[in-house]
Amino acid sequence: MIKSDIEIAQEATMLPIAKVAEKIGLNEEQFESYGKYKAKIEVEKIDATKEGKVILVTAITPTPAGEGKTTTVVGLGDALNRIGKNTIIALREPSLGPVFGIKGGAAGGGYAQVVPMEDINLHFTGDFHAIGAANNLLAAIIDNHIFQGNELGIDNRRITWKRAVDMNDRQLRQIVDGLGARVNGVPREDGFEITVASEIMAILCLSNDIEDLKENLANIIIGYTYDNQPVTAKELNAQGAMTALLKDAIKPNLVQTLENNPALIHGGPFANIAHGCNSVIATKTARKLADYVVTEGGFGADLGAEKFIDIKCRKSGIRPSAVVVVATVRALKMHGGVLKDQLGVENVAALTKGLPNLLKHIENTTTVFGLPTVVAINKFPTDTEAELNLVKEECQKRNVNVVLSDVWEHGGAGGEELAREVVRLADQDNHFSFAYPDELPIKEKISAIVEKIYGGNAVRYEPIAEREIAKLEKLGFAHLPICMAKTQYSLSDDQTKLGRPTDFTITISNIKISAGAGFIVAYTGTVMTMPGLPKKAAYEKIDVDSSGKIIGLF
Amino acid sequence: MIKSDIEIAQEATMLPIAKVAEKIGLNEEQFESYGKYKAKIEVEKIDATKEGKVILVTAITPTPAGEGKTTTVVGLGDALNRIGKNTIIALREPSLGPVFGIKGGAAGGGYAQVVPMEDINLHFTGDFHAIGAANNLLAAIIDNHIFQGNELGIDNRRITWKRAVDMNDRQLRQIVDGLGARVNGVPREDGFEITVASEIMAILCLSNDIEDLKENLANIIIGYTYDNQPVTAKELNAQGAMTALLKDAIKPNLVQTLENNPALIHGGPFANIAHGCNSVIATKTARKLADYVVTEGGFGADLGAEKFIDIKCRKSGIRPSAVVVVATVRALKMHGGVLKDQLGVENVAALTKGLPNLLKHIENTTTVFGLPTVVAINKFPTDTEAELNLVKEECQKRNVNVVLSDVWEHGGAGGEELAREVVRLADQDNHFSFAYPDELPIKEKISAIVEKIYGGNAVRYEPIAEREIAKLEKLGFAHLPICMAKTQYSLSDDQTKLGRPTDFTITISNIKISAGAGFIVAYTGTVMTMPGLPKKAAYEKIDVDSSGKIIGLF
Repeated sequence: MIKSDIEIAQEATMLPIAKVAEKIGLNEEQFESYGKYKAKIEVEKIDATKEGKVILVTAITPTPAGEGKTTTVVGLGDALNRIGKNTIIALREPSLGPVFGIKGGAAGGGYAQVVPMEDINLHFTGDFHAIGAANNLLAAIIDNHIFQGNELGIDNRRITWKRAVDMNDRQLRQIVDGLGARVNGVPREDGFEITVASEIMAILCLSNDIEDLKENLANIIIGYTYDNQPVTAKELNAQGAMTALLKDAIKPNLVQTLENNPALIHGGPFANIAHGCNSVIATKTARKLADYVVTEGGFGADLGAEKFIDIKCRKSGIRPSAVVVVATVRALKMHGGVLKDQLGVENVAALTKGLPNLLKHIENTTTVFGLPTVVAINKFPTDTEAELNLVKEECQKRNVNVVLSDVWEHGGAGGEELAREVVRLADQDNHFSFAYPDELPIKEKISAIVEKIYGGNAVRYEPIAEREIAKLEKLGFAHLPICMAKTQYSLSDDQTKLGRPTDFTITISNIKISAGAGFIVAYTGTVMTMPGLPKKAAYEKIDVDSSGKIIGLF
Repeated sequence: MIKSDIEIAQEATMLPIAKVAEKIGLNEEQFESYGKYKAKIEVEKIDATKEGKVILVTAITPTPAGEGKTTTVVGLGDALNRIGKNTIIALREPSLGPVFGIKGGAAGGGYAQVVPMEDINLHFTGDFHAIGAANNLLAAIIDNHIFQGNELGIDNRRITWKRAVDMNDRQLRQIVDGLGARVNGVPREDGFEITVASEIMAILCLSNDIEDLKENLANIIIGYTYDNQPVTAKELNAQGAMTALLKDAIKPNLVQTLENNPALIHGGPFANIAHGCNSVIATKTARKLADYVVTEGGFGADLGAEKFIDIKCRKSGIRPSAVVVVATVRALKMHGGVLKDQLGVENVAALTKGLPNLLKHIENTTTVFGLPTVVAINKFPTDTEAELNLVKEECQKRNVNVVLSDVWEHGGAGGEELAREVVRLADQDNHFSFAYPDELPIKEKISAIVEKIYGGNAVRYEPIAEREIAKLEKLGFAHLPICMAKTQYSLSDDQTKLGRPTDFTITISNIKISAGAGFIVAYTGTVMTMPGLPKKAAYEKIDVDSSGKIIGLF
């Protein structure tokens, strides 16, 4: 009888959060409790100068079979602590909306979870609501400015700033607002994004402190004037009040794993239109408090690891010491052409066919980014010995480090071999490098990513993308890094091309600036920034019993 | 040099919230800290059976001159504690949106404030965001139901449930959503309310515990089918997930006054379309922990005290022991016809002319509701001795208890006389009565309020109101209490009629059901449930300094 994640989580014996804080050397002044099992860290009161080693956990190209990246981060952190290495994990906060849709919660799985799982999935310490409020304050200020006379001459057909709500609500994707009467504003086309897609989420996660946050908020471009000039949040004088709304949200959240080890969970930007990593502040804080920091990027390594390095590391000065690429036999079999309902059947041929996907990601982390890398095969009960051996042998044949990981079933104990390998790799010298330097022109940066990371041949630009690149270069944004908004399901921009596609062109359909976050988003297609609820949705099973306990969260 | 409220608040020496909790006898298991100066009380873990006396603070008909009702609650609470009476105050949480508009914060004033003032005004413990999320989850579920086939046959032209955001954003009052493509939902007219206007706010504040909350949420009517039948949240199976979102929001928040006395601040429904009081749970919890509980109703006594008694007391079993009616010389002069910029000039004639407003409210609290009442004259520096004496003498002449209160300038010390009078009154027998019994037909309930409380002659109904009353009686809702949505600026429904208007008719323009909250809203005109930002808005002055301190909040 397999227990559900929430059952395992609710059976956990949690330490009071003050005890967890004590473990990492925090005194009473350096954290604030939010209930018994959550805390916010008062970063500016920490004077430690340690810089723990950063271990980046990334994955092969995702499939519906699942890879278990977050689970591996949690399990690896627990394992490092088990083998006596002082370790903190740093993860993203889950988004509220998807909890009621298909996805359920997002806080690891099995015996490698962070807790209190219900709280982490529902509001947590309120960070995302604060981000939504700051987002919507700016929106209200924009429309109020227009309503009150529009001194700046904002073209209300060219406002790029959208409203946000942390809910899967397709009905709000495209709206017309300001209707009904003169006192109700000025009618215009508008729309909502889910809060994690707000540029403020990316800004919060890339800011080094509250001053930096305010400056980045001030730089947000909210749209354009009738004269074609960008309008910033600073021109609306919105950054101070927005920062006030974010004064607590910027503090990293401390919780614990099932094995009572410290976990910082903070921020969670989209991994397509944004960079998909937890906050810089959380990662830096963890480095001050531990010898090892295990963290993750969103999606597969082509997106998550690339953005972790080219955006988060570039802006923060953080440098990882080693990379873990998570793979599963099941997912590699899907890359080899097996359908989801056939994954329980041994299929060494398909596995062999899917393996090049893994190898390409390792090539990237080692050759392009210059980082010692280990493959973690995240074990599933259906994996056969022949399959597991094949992956190991194929890796070893190519001098690729590879370790079996069994943290879902055994927690930290299932990750000790991985932990020892990670420690070994992190002690090695590395040749850290970005995929491109700042000073390359926008198109050359995109080419560098496409050719080096994706393995594509060329990049094609739609006319609108060409125009936007020209505009952004004229406006002085050419030095910013690129944030690729590409399907996560393929190394190419065609989600049907599994495995390791070759001889393909990437088409850039549009280019947008996130001037506050400080990156240029290159779209390879449309990106949905507001999900919807499915017909059979998770919310129908979620309930609270009379004691106040949440049930049915997964 | 007069200090601003935020300056006074930031100079306060706060006790750690655990110390405040200790003062009211809470052990470690009975509260959860949210930062150093806020906590949530674990109500179900309190086994005290005490029932402290409830003191209701209400006011004359509001004017732009201000009355200082919340300030009086805070000062009276501090004064009661000063004279040795174990007292907790119970207040509403301020709404976030107005903080950025005209209003600034709302946590008392001068030396009678609750702290931490910035936190209370910005997100606080996240209750309102949780209410907004529950509101918007229900909205998303409704539109998803229609999108996925509309099994219930919901008429999308007759959905009464709106979306919510805690922001002053007029642009969202009236919208068309579901636009752009088939996958974006089904186009329909829609709109947003500010979160405090959500029925969920009223429900949270009128529920006795989490089971009651879930049942009330299930009863929400979200709109009507093509067959004219009401559709409830229960039919959409939304109440469990909504309750899960509210599991922490339902716990009362503990903070402190400037004088380190305990304050419960919890919930804050609109005072027109809803009942305008803090939560039943907070008031009941305070009664278990203190001998005196000082609380307030919204607006003037015609709305706030009436709803406190006819809605909150009726549903909860709470019975107040005494009433304080707050008045100021300035406001009474406005009721006597003085313009705001002339309020600094002594004007005994105008004061005499305005006084009947005060007397009518006292007549209501004593004669209709049968409660011992005292007038608290909230002193302002511009009041002259002749003016203050006039109010006192006119009250005393009529055997109305009256006391000067100076808590804005002196905190609890300025309210000791009021405190002693309140203790005296609360010891008296009273003849508590509702304005009407449950079983009266809807129209007779409305007549009772209009004639007894407002002093009007008659009620006129618009045809739509007549139709809605017939419909609600047919649907079995006739037994519910009435929630009058009337201007707060006059005892009549005409806001230009100051003082004590006579010989007037009240026009009921519409009737709506809040079946979850359990009351019938009678509209005497249109009520704005989504404010806008003004041209010169408060947000422009709000900022955060490099130490993370909020500045310019007032």
